[in-house]
Amino acid sequence: MKRIAVIGAGPSGLAMLRAFQSAKAKGAEIPEVVCFEKQSDWGGLWNYTWRTGVDENGEPVHCSMYRYLWTNGPKEGLEFADYSFEEHFGKQIASYPPRAVMMDYIEGRVKKADVRKWIRFSTVVRWVEYNEATGDFTVTVHDMEKDSVYKERFDHVVCASGHFSSPNVPEYPGFDQFYGRIVHAHDFRDAREFAGQDVLLVGASYSAEDIGSQCWKYGAKSVTTSYRSAPMGFNWPDNWEEKPALVKVEGKTAFFKDGSSKEIDSIILCTGYKHYFPFLPDDLRLKTKNRLATADLYKGVVYVHNPKMFYLGMQDQWFTFNMFDAQAWYVRDIILGRIAVPEDKQVLLDDVAEREAREEAQDDVKYAIKYQGAYVKELIADTDYPSFDVDGACYAFFEWKQHKIDDIMGFRNNSYKSLMTGTMAPTHHTPWKDALDDSMEAYLKN
Amino acid sequence: MKRIAVIGAGPSGLAMLRAFQSAKAKGAEIPEVVCFEKQSDWGGLWNYTWRTGVDENGEPVHCSMYRYLWTNGPKEGLEFADYSFEEHFGKQIASYPPRAVMMDYIEGRVKKADVRKWIRFSTVVRWVEYNEATGDFTVTVHDMEKDSVYKERFDHVVCASGHFSSPNVPEYPGFDQFYGRIVHAHDFRDAREFAGQDVLLVGASYSAEDIGSQCWKYGAKSVTTSYRSAPMGFNWPDNWEEKPALVKVEGKTAFFKDGSSKEIDSIILCTGYKHYFPFLPDDLRLKTKNRLATADLYKGVVYVHNPKMFYLGMQDQWFTFNMFDAQAWYVRDIILGRIAVPEDKQVLLDDVAEREAREEAQDDVKYAIKYQGAYVKELIADTDYPSFDVDGACYAFFEWKQHKIDDIMGFRNNSYKSLMTGTMAPTHHTPWKDALDDSMEAYLKN
Repeated sequence: MKRIAVIGAGPSGLAMLRAFQSAKAKGAEIPEVVCFEKQSDWGGLWNYTWRTGVDENGEPVHCSMYRYLWTNGPKEGLEFADYSFEEHFGKQIASYPPRAVMMDYIEGRVKKADVRKWIRFSTVVRWVEYNEATGDFTVTVHDMEKDSVYKERFDHVVCASGHFSSPNVPEYPGFDQFYGRIVHAHDFRDAREFAGQDVLLVGASYSAEDIGSQCWKYGAKSVTTSYRSAPMGFNWPDNWEEKPALVKVEGKTAFFKDGSSKEIDSIILCTGYKHYFPFLPDDLRLKTKNRLATADLYKGVVYVHNPKMFYLGMQDQWFTFNMFDAQAWYVRDIILGRIAVPEDKQVLLDDVAEREAREEAQDDVKYAIKYQGAYVKELIADTDYPSFDVDGACYAFFEWKQHKIDDIMGFRNNSYKSLMTGTMAPTHHTPWKDALDDSMEAYLKN
Repeated sequence: MKRIAVIGAGPSGLAMLRAFQSAKAKGAEIPEVVCFEKQSDWGGLWNYTWRTGVDENGEPVHCSMYRYLWTNGPKEGLEFADYSFEEHFGKQIASYPPRAVMMDYIEGRVKKADVRKWIRFSTVVRWVEYNEATGDFTVTVHDMEKDSVYKERFDHVVCASGHFSSPNVPEYPGFDQFYGRIVHAHDFRDAREFAGQDVLLVGASYSAEDIGSQCWKYGAKSVTTSYRSAPMGFNWPDNWEEKPALVKVEGKTAFFKDGSSKEIDSIILCTGYKHYFPFLPDDLRLKTKNRLATADLYKGVVYVHNPKMFYLGMQDQWFTFNMFDAQAWYVRDIILGRIAVPEDKQVLLDDVAEREAREEAQDDVKYAIKYQGAYVKELIADTDYPSFDVDGACYAFFEWKQHKIDDIMGFRNNSYKSLMTGTMAPTHHTPWKDALDDSMEAYLKN
């Protein structure tokens, strides 16, 4: 029997487990699946911890989540096609759930699928090697509970360890002498820590927008964000200012590219994440930018330099959970022999090149969303993953984009229709900016 | 020619390099020495960075140092026997130098020895394996600058990666809902971040004492330390309070074992460090408590389960730099064939057992200091490391202990006599509590 190693039990890894379980439930013979998860529980990024830096075992903390996080896009764009929010909660719920609600939903599907037994928790993958002679992989892992290292052989490795966990942390002149706190978004946990402060967020993407909004919501004195290329340009509250690039800091003063300066108490680096695979040698390690057409992945999942190795969820993302599903079902069917990967490496390379060229053809948000929608459709077409209205999801993303332009502190008050069940989401009982309690109980009290 | 891998270019690793260079300078043939250092510069813990959590390459930050750190023991106890402070600075300096001064001193010796060329910087050791068939080691490393992984073979591995870098981070009830910041001493950087705050430090050892003192010196509103077994018991300033064990936190309130509670803004976990070797398999990985008689190390340096593998500086420490030197010279002489390691494993195990029993024979600070002094003498006797007055160093430690009891915020104002040159250290120009500038320029301005 074939043996499959899955690295990571977050949304992508769990999709892989669910994909195999789904095939088994329909009568297929499936390989032995072993999922290695370094955390003590599943959920990946959605498994919140107050810890920062390194975890209880000395390993880099995986979690980049913070308290009070609500999804920053409508849940209708990420709903599982095989497990709706209505099935899980017994009713339709509002469109921007907080983290605890999302975690409950993610868990619901895999509890139902009964795949927890395939996961070895608190187990860190230390090293993976491909054995040319035998055509399989040796995976070396560290069981942190037993403090014991062991090796096992696998026919395939599916890397689903995510790429929003290892922070990209630039240095600016004066950082080593700054009088306040400097923290990357990865280690941001509770907005209340910044109440009453003048906070500078370096960056102009989702982290800066959302963490800035959190700080504003929970009482920061002022929020300043600095951009390199262009401001976010939303209608910010009065105590929120966008500045051009940070140049340096001195004492507690930040200096910007336009010559202006500002007194600040803390700096939050919203400078993105890196694809980071400390357990992979050169011949297996994906090197890619954070983009829609990932380098070196045929169909976005098969590693072109060793097609026995797969990667899930390594793309920049408009689509998330249901895209990971589409990928997991596709990889499953390759492993089960239902889908053939071309043997000619040039075909694989051409596939990657075509995706890259098509991504680069237009520089437009709607184009990018449709591009990734088309990718999801392409994969789903070849497997038994339940088909759904991908164009409808794209349209929901378009609406969401407009809602943010209309009211950046109010966009989460909008509702969308489920593409899986056709039900309209209810309006949430409290506007986002006034809803300080992010618990599941509070959110579901509609 | 034999090849030696040294892991880490901090005080212990640099001592190893200097030991070999010293033998070469006296005409000995030495093996090829390759030192792997994950940081971009040498100095280990003394190489300060503002970074916390993970570094620019995604690796756990090694640095546990903070700004404004002065040595917490007299420099006369740690002076190199082959390179005095007077030789380095051209004059005798005061007894408790800040970090930058210490770093300069550490660098001075190895610059003079010209061993930087043996170090491969920004190179992370990913995995080490012992090859039974060939009797050597395969070391897999990741060159972060080239983003390239490669392997090399070595006859010996010297692990000098330290054990004050991987924090021990306990969880207390309520931490996931605490409204303030929770940070381990490892990620503490600038006391000014806590100015005006009510700070709780969990722990009663050196980190709690020194970081609490830093916070007090730089303007914390109040300092609270909590102990599990016994209070530190110094004559603290008025706004410093010792509490028994922390039980839980709720909102911003900390509750202690005696039923008392206190409003706090931040929690600093001064809960120690762990021996952490993520690059070592079970048959090479040291497992020990932080104690004077380290487990499984013959003469405190030879790994009993594979005597081709050495560890430096893995002991709990009264003695530091000159003890690392004593160890490095000893390991060097084993590798050079000047000192024989008994072939009977039982002899090695008996050596460890004898050291453990002798450490446990008395529970007394002076006994412990003398115990480690005797260890340093034992190793020095067998090599050409310059002999020095180890008993004099013990006596300096006794004095230091008393100075702390006399005046915990003033003990650094005392002076000691060098055991290497016999010169008395000058009195520093400014009492520690008033010396806010920790730069080398400021310190040397006597």
